[in-house]
Amino acid sequence: MRAVVMRNKELVVDTVPDPEPGPGEAIVKTLACGICGSDLHALKFADRMVDIARETDTPFNMDPARDVVMGHEFCVEVLDYGPGTDATITPGRRAVSMPLLFRPDGIMAVGYSNAVPGGYGELMVLNASLLLEVPNGLGTEHAAMTEPMAVGLHAVEKARLDPGDAAMVFGCGPVGLAVIAALKLKGVEPIVAGDFSPMRRSLATKMGAHVVVDPKERRVLDAYREAADLRPAAVFECVGVPGVLGDVMRQAPRNAKIVVAGVCMEDDAIKPMIGINKELSLQFVLGYSPLEFMDTLGALADGRIDVAPLVTGKVGAGGVAQAFRDLGSPEQHAKILVEPWRS
Amino acid sequence: MRAVVMRNKELVVDTVPDPEPGPGEAIVKTLACGICGSDLHALKFADRMVDIARETDTPFNMDPARDVVMGHEFCVEVLDYGPGTDATITPGRRAVSMPLLFRPDGIMAVGYSNAVPGGYGELMVLNASLLLEVPNGLGTEHAAMTEPMAVGLHAVEKARLDPGDAAMVFGCGPVGLAVIAALKLKGVEPIVAGDFSPMRRSLATKMGAHVVVDPKERRVLDAYREAADLRPAAVFECVGVPGVLGDVMRQAPRNAKIVVAGVCMEDDAIKPMIGINKELSLQFVLGYSPLEFMDTLGALADGRIDVAPLVTGKVGAGGVAQAFRDLGSPEQHAKILVEPWRS
Repeated sequence: MRAVVMRNKELVVDTVPDPEPGPGEAIVKTLACGICGSDLHALKFADRMVDIARETDTPFNMDPARDVVMGHEFCVEVLDYGPGTDATITPGRRAVSMPLLFRPDGIMAVGYSNAVPGGYGELMVLNASLLLEVPNGLGTEHAAMTEPMAVGLHAVEKARLDPGDAAMVFGCGPVGLAVIAALKLKGVEPIVAGDFSPMRRSLATKMGAHVVVDPKERRVLDAYREAADLRPAAVFECVGVPGVLGDVMRQAPRNAKIVVAGVCMEDDAIKPMIGINKELSLQFVLGYSPLEFMDTLGALADGRIDVAPLVTGKVGAGGVAQAFRDLGSPEQHAKILVEPWRS
Repeated sequence: MRAVVMRNKELVVDTVPDPEPGPGEAIVKTLACGICGSDLHALKFADRMVDIARETDTPFNMDPARDVVMGHEFCVEVLDYGPGTDATITPGRRAVSMPLLFRPDGIMAVGYSNAVPGGYGELMVLNASLLLEVPNGLGTEHAAMTEPMAVGLHAVEKARLDPGDAAMVFGCGPVGLAVIAALKLKGVEPIVAGDFSPMRRSLATKMGAHVVVDPKERRVLDAYREAADLRPAAVFECVGVPGVLGDVMRQAPRNAKIVVAGVCMEDDAIKPMIGINKELSLQFVLGYSPLEFMDTLGALADGRIDVAPLVTGKVGAGGVAQAFRDLGSPEQHAKILVEPWRS
């Protein structure tokens, strides 16, 4: 099959062996697969990701020296099933799945594995039992957004919101926008967000933020004070660059619950005394639960989350390398979908 | 009156004006006052404490360039009351109070104020309404431990323990020992603690830790795995030195709730990816609530917390400077009480 392969820190289009579905597995055609910020990280920092995963006993045993077909935000068409497998979804129908493959020899992170391809290839194998049929006529491009939007829902769930909490969101890239959508879903008000990029600020408003500021002109905290006064704050760090967490702690109101959803690959410096004096809490988050993934698909399908503004581009296999470069600039794109079935 | 005064980063015994009780205030005689690690910090880092308090809008408006009588862990004898004040406790009886003084012109941190003296002086003024009579014949030396032990209870409350949680305690200085006592009070089991000091390890066992290790010989995590297997962990960072938080995050089990009770005055570096991969939470804590303070006094008075092992020394006013130096070494002392009524 054709696939976009990560090889020697480059993305190349190549022909690779078709994956073979084992017992309990389906073989599927990738219809659309989003490019995630983590994929951009992985292309640069794969070695570091592997080191930290090993240090934290995280099942993420990718060898960056060997070929990897990335892509973990996908909507697929079911083609067939492996030997002795019940057809949970009729072939020809569309599905999504969490990007995990449970096999007798371990758990594979689909999109970060040498053993199985991710959604930047034409074909994938997935656990039949994890497939969720795309409901309610939800469009393929929007169904592919289930995974990144589930990240936002999980971050909001982990904030353990109390009634009356308002929210501050630092950074309106894909993670921040998913958080804003989930906060809106939960009825949180006001949602006060900040980003340096005019395009991202505009998307933040479309996804449900009530107040959006340019941090060059106004601190998120000052806008929050005006909009929410002294209401308790859930604060979302959605940038993931060294120094931002320290600044978020500085701006967080007393007793704030800070959810660290930005993925900072490097060491970061904080001032513990700021956390102590304000009794801040920091909740680091990763991924989502199966239930949160399913709930997100439901919210997309019945229109409670509208991801239409977020899909800003589509490329075939040959356009992925350029898309990675384009995503470096916040003004061009929010989410680019890969359609690996076309060149 | 006689008092131990912090002046030009030194502790000197001097005669200072007697404090005058205003309306709603009591004048009291300090019977015993513990030396807190924060006092040791303040003698070295007062400027930094003030800067960070200002940055975080914390009511802590001490000017280190002017005299300060420290001391905020006290048991007192009530002498008299200010004008028009109801005698909540009969003069001659003993009391404790949170070290805060609410006055028309603001809140004073007793022990960190230029306006009113703390417990290193013979006399203090305190709000009559905050005085709690020492119950049940509890000894003066043990009643003076209410404040530091309340710090431990608060840290444990902020961990929001779920049934079945076990605990890891990093560092068995006064804060770690107070945390261990509060964990024991709550029935948490096992409590696994670590400290480099043999004396502190011995005190940790006396206060209720089930397993205590020397981190030079064994990681706290390894002892925890053996004692608690995969039980969810509440983890207490009670050291407060740069680098320790990063190490605690490295040793914390997946999903652990880390309570940061150690007071680290300096910048600290963490690896956010370790927090993310394990979905750790960090709760910074400070002080205690009035209810926690009261509950702690009750637990001391009815023997549910026994602080006898912790009081390792007593000094008069003239011995305070040396006591500060002695507390630099963990092998000599846990808590030293100042009796400012004697030279």
